This record gives sequence, structure tokens and C-alpha cells, in this order.
Amino acid sequence: MDPDTVAKAFVDHYYSTFDTNRATLATLYQDTSMLTFEGQKILGSANIVAKLTTLPFQQCKHMITTVDCQPSGPSGGMLVFVSGNLQISGEQHALKFSQMFHLMPTLSSFYVLNDIFRLNYA
Amino acid sequence: MDPDTVAKAFVDHYYSTFDTNRATLATLYQDTSMLTFEGQKILGSANIVAKLTTLPFQQCKHMITTVDCQPSGPSGGMLVFVSGNLQISGEQHALKFSQMFHLMPTLSSFYVLNDIFRLNYA
Repeated sequence: MDPDTVAKAFVDHYYSTFDTNRATLATLYQDTSMLTFEGQKILGSANIVAKLTTLPFQQCKHMITTVDCQPSGPSGGMLVFVSGNLQISGEQHALKFSQMFHLMPTLSSFYVLNDIFRLNYA
Repeated sequence: MDPDTVAKAFVDHYYSTFDTNRATLATLYQDTSMLTFEGQKILGSANIVAKLTTLPFQQCKHMITTVDCQPSGPSGGMLVFVSGNLQISGEQHALKFSQMFHLMPTLSSFYVLNDIFRLNYA
């Protein structure tokens, strides 16, 4: 698969998992993974998923606008840059967001080494 | 210097250079550098600067809202994630943008290996 196809498949998988069962995102991170969520830095799969599962909303839906990807250098990683809208249950307006992932290869797939999320306030 | 300070210094330098003399951004990229600009992929310092210097506006000013950074793994790189507003000369409203940089170490500093830019349309 070419990198753009891999990136698109990852993004579809990530957000559909986020929107249906956030706790299972744990399998996509490892102990060295980092999330920066609205400026807050969180290290390791367990802490990351603890953060994501305790966000102050229960139901949400991510709608993706753009997905860009590039190889990240000699370690065989891939950078994935996403923009889109986040509709939170009970909120009238969707929130614009941008997020980047640094995917690193495993034997058969990828894990998320770096994850940075920001809402794009108006 | 701690990574956040390095990232902030890079961002200040990058956008002040962009806003005053885009051609001199060439020194921040190398032949293996990649820019994805609004979905268009461009490889190498010369091509990247050719793109940036022929954008359809002469004067602009970037106003930075957030800067996040993380170490990018074993190769000693650093990921920098920026959100902000871009005011283009002659335009009434600023454009929101997000941009990420993957900085890789050189002997004395960093160069930009990966650069992904997106406008965040309303």
C-alpha cells in the first residue's frame, strides 16, 4: 500500500474507534507514546487513554476534512496531519480541530509515537 | 535549552523570515526536505522555496496562537505543531492555519525535514 492509502486507513480506523469505543485506542499507543492535548503533555498508552476516556463528553463524531502524510525519515515512520470537525453530543456547532500523528512501524503495522491535538477556535 | 524553548525560537525565526524575506528560508531546508502545501507535495529546498516565493501574495504576517512540540524518536528530531492566523496584504480577514514541522538535528542546529501546511477554512 502506498503511504497515502496507509494514512487514510489509519485515520479512518482511529476516529471510528474514538467515536465508538475510546478505551480500545490503547492498542494504538505504546509506553513511549506522547499525546499533547490542548497543550497538556501526557506520556504512555495508559495515561493517554485515561485522558481520552475522561474527556468531558460521552459521545462525539469526527468528520475529516483533509489528510496529509509524509515519510518521517530514516526510522521508517510516517507523519499524518489531519484537519476536520468534531461534533460533540448536545453541542449545536461542530468544533474545528487539527491533529498530527507520528506513526512508527511495528512488525506488522504501526503504532502512534507522537500525537498532538488542537482545537482551532474561531 | 529545553525543547519548548527551541521550538518557540524556531517558530519565531521561521515566520519572521517568511514575512520579511521568504527566499532566505532556503537555508532551513535540505534536498531531502518535504513540504505539503494545501495538499501539494514538494521535494527539496530549491523547489520548496520556489513554491513559497511564488505564492499569490507579496506581503503577509503570521500571528501565532499555539506552539506544541515533542521529541520525534531515536533520530533526535523534534516535532513542532503550530496554529495561528495569516494576514495577507489587501485581505480584510486573517486566515486561520495549522502547520507542522519535523526538525532534524545538524551539527549546530536543526533543519526542516517535514513541513505540512493547511489553511483551516470556516
